[in-house]
Amino acid sequence: MSEVTLETLNAADAAQFTAALGDIFEHAPWVAEAARGSRPFSTLAALYAAMTQAVSAAAPERQLALIRAHPDLAGKAARADTMAPASVAEQASAGLDRLSEQDFARFHWLNDAYRKRFGFPFIVCVRRHGKDSILRQFERRLQHDQATESAAALAEIFRIAALRLDQRVAAPDRLKVHGRLSTHVLDVHGGLPAENVAIEFLELSDGGDMRQIQRARTNHDGRTDRPLIEGRPIPIGCYELRFAVGDYFASRGVALADPPFLDVVPVRFSVAEPEGHYHVPLLVTPWSYSTYRGS
Amino acid sequence: MSEVTLETLNAADAAQFTAALGDIFEHAPWVAEAARGSRPFSTLAALYAAMTQAVSAAAPERQLALIRAHPDLAGKAARADTMAPASVAEQASAGLDRLSEQDFARFHWLNDAYRKRFGFPFIVCVRRHGKDSILRQFERRLQHDQATESAAALAEIFRIAALRLDQRVAAPDRLKVHGRLSTHVLDVHGGLPAENVAIEFLELSDGGDMRQIQRARTNHDGRTDRPLIEGRPIPIGCYELRFAVGDYFASRGVALADPPFLDVVPVRFSVAEPEGHYHVPLLVTPWSYSTYRGS
Amino acid sequence: MSEVTLETLNAADAAQFTAALGDIFEHAPWVAEAARGSRPFSTLAALYAAMTQAVSAAAPERQLALIRAHPDLAGKAARADTMAPASVAEQASAGLDRLSEQDFARFHWLNDAYRKRFGFPFIVCVRRHGKDSILRQFERRLQHDQATESAAALAEIFRIAALRLDQRVAAPDRLKVHGRLSTHVLDVHGGLPAENVAIEFLELSDGGDMRQIQRARTNHDGRTDRPLIEGRPIPIGCYELRFAVGDYFASRGVALADPPFLDVVPVRFSVAEPEGHYHVPLLVTPWSYSTYRGS
Amino acid sequence: MSEVTLETLNAADAAQFTAALGDIFEHAPWVAEAARGSRPFSTLAALYAAMTQAVSAAAPERQLALIRAHPDLAGKAARADTMAPASVAEQASAGLDRLSEQDFARFHWLNDAYRKRFGFPFIVCVRRHGKDSILRQFERRLQHDQATESAAALAEIFRIAALRLDQRVAAPDRLKVHGRLSTHVLDVHGGLPAENVAIEFLELSDGGDMRQIQRARTNHDGRTDRPLIEGRPIPIGCYELRFAVGDYFASRGVALADPPFLDVVPVRFSVAEPEGHYHVPLLVTPWSYSTYRGS
Repeated sequence: MSEVTLETLNAADAAQFTAALGDIFEHAPWVAEAARGSRPFSTLAALYAAMTQAVSAAAPERQLALIRAHPDLAGKAARADTMAPASVAEQASAGLDRLSEQDFARFHWLNDAYRKRFGFPFIVCVRRHGKDSILRQFERRLQHDQATESAAALAEIFRIAALRLDQRVAAPDRLKVHGRLSTHVLDVHGGLPAENVAIEFLELSDGGDMRQIQRARTNHDGRTDRPLIEGRPIPIGCYELRFAVGDYFASRGVALADPPFLDVVPVRFSVAEPEGHYHVPLLVTPWSYSTYRGS
Repeated sequence: MSEVTLETLNAADAAQFTAALGDIFEHAPWVAEAARGSRPFSTLAALYAAMTQAVSAAAPERQLALIRAHPDLAGKAARADTMAPASVAEQASAGLDRLSEQDFARFHWLNDAYRKRFGFPFIVCVRRHGKDSILRQFERRLQHDQATESAAALAEIFRIAALRLDQRVAAPDRLKVHGRLSTHVLDVHGGLPAENVAIEFLELSDGGDMRQIQRARTNHDGRTDRPLIEGRPIPIGCYELRFAVGDYFASRGVALADPPFLDVVPVRFSVAEPEGHYHVPLLVTPWSYSTYRGS
Repeated sequence: MSEVTLETLNAADAAQFTAALGDIFEHAPWVAEAARGSRPFSTLAALYAAMTQAVSAAAPERQLALIRAHPDLAGKAARADTMAPASVAEQASAGLDRLSEQDFARFHWLNDAYRKRFGFPFIVCVRRHGKDSILRQFERRLQHDQATESAAALAEIFRIAALRLDQRVAAPDRLKVHGRLSTHVLDVHGGLPAENVAIEFLELSDGGDMRQIQRARTNHDGRTDRPLIEGRPIPIGCYELRFAVGDYFASRGVALADPPFLDVVPVRFSVAEPEGHYHVPLLVTPWSYSTYRGS
Repeated sequence: MSEVTLETLNAADAAQFTAALGDIFEHAPWVAEAARGSRPFSTLAALYAAMTQAVSAAAPERQLALIRAHPDLAGKAARADTMAPASVAEQASAGLDRLSEQDFARFHWLNDAYRKRFGFPFIVCVRRHGKDSILRQFERRLQHDQATESAAALAEIFRIAALRLDQRVAAPDRLKVHGRLSTHVLDVHGGLPAENVAIEFLELSDGGDMRQIQRARTNHDGRTDRPLIEGRPIPIGCYELRFAVGDYFASRGVALADPPFLDVVPVRFSVAEPEGHYHVPLLVTPWSYSTYRGS
């Protein structure tokens, strides 16, 4: 679905408005309908506030129905292709469309236990998580009481809606739904940005599996041309950057040990705030390096 | 074979002397016999010099016979149990007794190519190398001319002899045949040595395989109770230290992100000088770390 | 004198053009007159090239006259108020208007020795230097032969002209005549930019004197609101940044030793490239810090 | 006075014992006499415990007399040469024998105020302090109530006694009365200890004065041949180490900027625990450095 502007939304009739925003909340066009009365919206934040306010003001039964309208995570719906298209894409983003049989069985068991306990499906804004992080959420939230968990489910629904709005509506402002992950390599042997350093960016699972997300090279300023992640949340999870510093120093003609003391430098870190800015630089010589969470 | 003192060697008769040192050079008791004339030895270095001098002064044919008396590396001799006992232990130290079929085939091919080119077996002081390092040596030395390679083979034989002497003879001095690899974890968040940090020490192969060598914990001074490697050469190769700093800071009650930005910190480095001192410390906070080759 | 645009210069008549640019080269309006024939200028770089080309193409006598038209550095002209206004401001920038009697005497002696040797006054682009750096230049250039030094004097005259043009003419492009000096404080104890850190910025002389240039505080991003130096060359010289990190950590409620291990952290460095970008950050905990030339 | 062994003390008659230890507590030989009854002492710690126990068990009047027997700090006694010899040396160690008139007046005023408030002289173990630290102690303790301050005075008397015992008695054990301050320079550009680096060690006063304590050069291991301070408490105060790294890298033939980005690196830190181990290393390249409190 293509982007729509705030101006268009402010001028739309009821049918057009619902056609544009009716699926921001899963199977709940009534949220858009209720928010329509608050027009005109001068900012995306105002539109988002009107929609979440409509949900917060709804009767508990209607909130419960909204929660229940969501599909199971990595559940039969996912395999049977009966999910809303937005949900399909969201679940794929966390790798839930490529689970092992073992993980699939684990999700199935958790879904059942959760549904039995709370009477509705487990909802999480999957774009903010990796698979392991979702499993940890699942296990923690299973310990909640009913009221706490209803509130938690609505909070996740709001996060999902915010991301959908961010993609759907062109506006002068942005919701704070994106993170940024960047790096920088500084050659403190030569006193200059390290250019043309090969970088591998990997995602690590709790079980030790590694999946390459991206390859990049630093430019003349020691940075990648674009941040490693931007324009979306950084999924909560564990990552590794691998910097080919041995090749870099060799290409500069620096005398190195054979084999070089440092060749590929791995930097492993976890992201806890999907909307945060993570700058993870490397200060390096052939014999030392430092890294830190920068800004 | 038990240790013998320099005093005992200085007082020994010819048969005793050769019984004690006849196998320092492979299948070449004549080296010990020749060195015996230089007694008394006040240091191990003097004994070593006398033995290597005997080889250097020998006729080329005798030197060549000495070289030829060595077994193939990871060759049929290794599998057929016909090697000298010292060679068996040495080859095991580099993992040559547990090669994959593919690696075994590669060694077999290299042995044949080398023997065809030079007319004698490939000799390397395996205690100073890992498997990948031996393969790199093999390939480089195959490029040598005959004279260069004869000299290289003798140099390796001398290194082997030095290590054997070091184990065989108790003396006031030591030959410089040992390296040392140590670490130290400093908590620069709290300003004190990091105690009780779990450390995993691994060996990495070129193919990406990892083999755990040791597990340890830091003591109250932030060090392991003993160096990770001491009293022997550090095999040339690639290593990784993994420091469980997330658990450490959590145990200190430091507020951490969830998951913590740093959990297990991997530090990967290569050793090029088996007789060197490698001190690889970690200076760490929950948000940053540095490492370097220290002393 | 106010800024003039390239358009205005391109449309100016001869008198207006010379009025606008006649003093870019000291007492040498003929340079502007010669450059005028190359109009129109689409960039400032093109105008600068035309002016320097006019000088380079001039007869040696005319070049020598141009050199001779410059005032002595920190000389009688400076005290007798007979210098061109631009020269007055430039000499003040390096502190040449506040020399001690001893330094004044030293400059006087050097001016005489230089003039006796080369037959013209010592010329240096003082905006690119501190006092000590000028003295070092003076002594080095006194060793030159006549041809080398004539070329050196013209090169300095071109640098002076570039800075004057940069201030006089508004253009779409900029000459590369500005440097930038900035800092950044990162709290790697807390994992965030260090806000509200008091910073003192000092200039150090060879003799050990210190002169405070600026006081600043870091903002929420750990930076000063503006670079410490921008929009002009950074004078070659020695500087010190002093970061009040003890007060910062105390204000954050971090438990500190009494007195704190680190209170005011001095970082001392020298600038060699006046047109370079010097980023000098501090990564700090209550027990450690790092600094480096960043980018 | 020369050292005496525990054996000698254990065998001494009453007069000898008091002759040896009668001045450990200022003008209070009764402390030694009382402690004598607890012989034999197998450790210095036992002797020290017996003496402090004798004081603690004494009647309040006797404790008060002991406190009152101490001289004023930097007081008339100091100038009139009527102090016990041990006190003279101790006060000199903190620079109290070379006060400015202004500081002398300040001490005089504080002594009077203190004596008026508490009825006894201000006592502090001066070997553990610099002048500024003593002044801070003075001002803080002036806020105490009588009981707190009597206890504080006795605690200082015990510290003084411990240091005197440590110098007087040869024993198998040592009291924990010594600190250690050391440094280490590691060249992480070259990957080796930095040899022959000139180091200046200074003491800083609150007013900004600096006093050079020592000059040293690093040896082949990057350390000074002896710790900068050992075998005594490190006076509480502020210090600066200055490392001549520009000269070092130049001597190694490393290409540097002109002037070098880093020439003399100052590292400023404060000591809060006189009996602590302060290791303050420098990891340095021509473009970066780190320092930290090590162990």
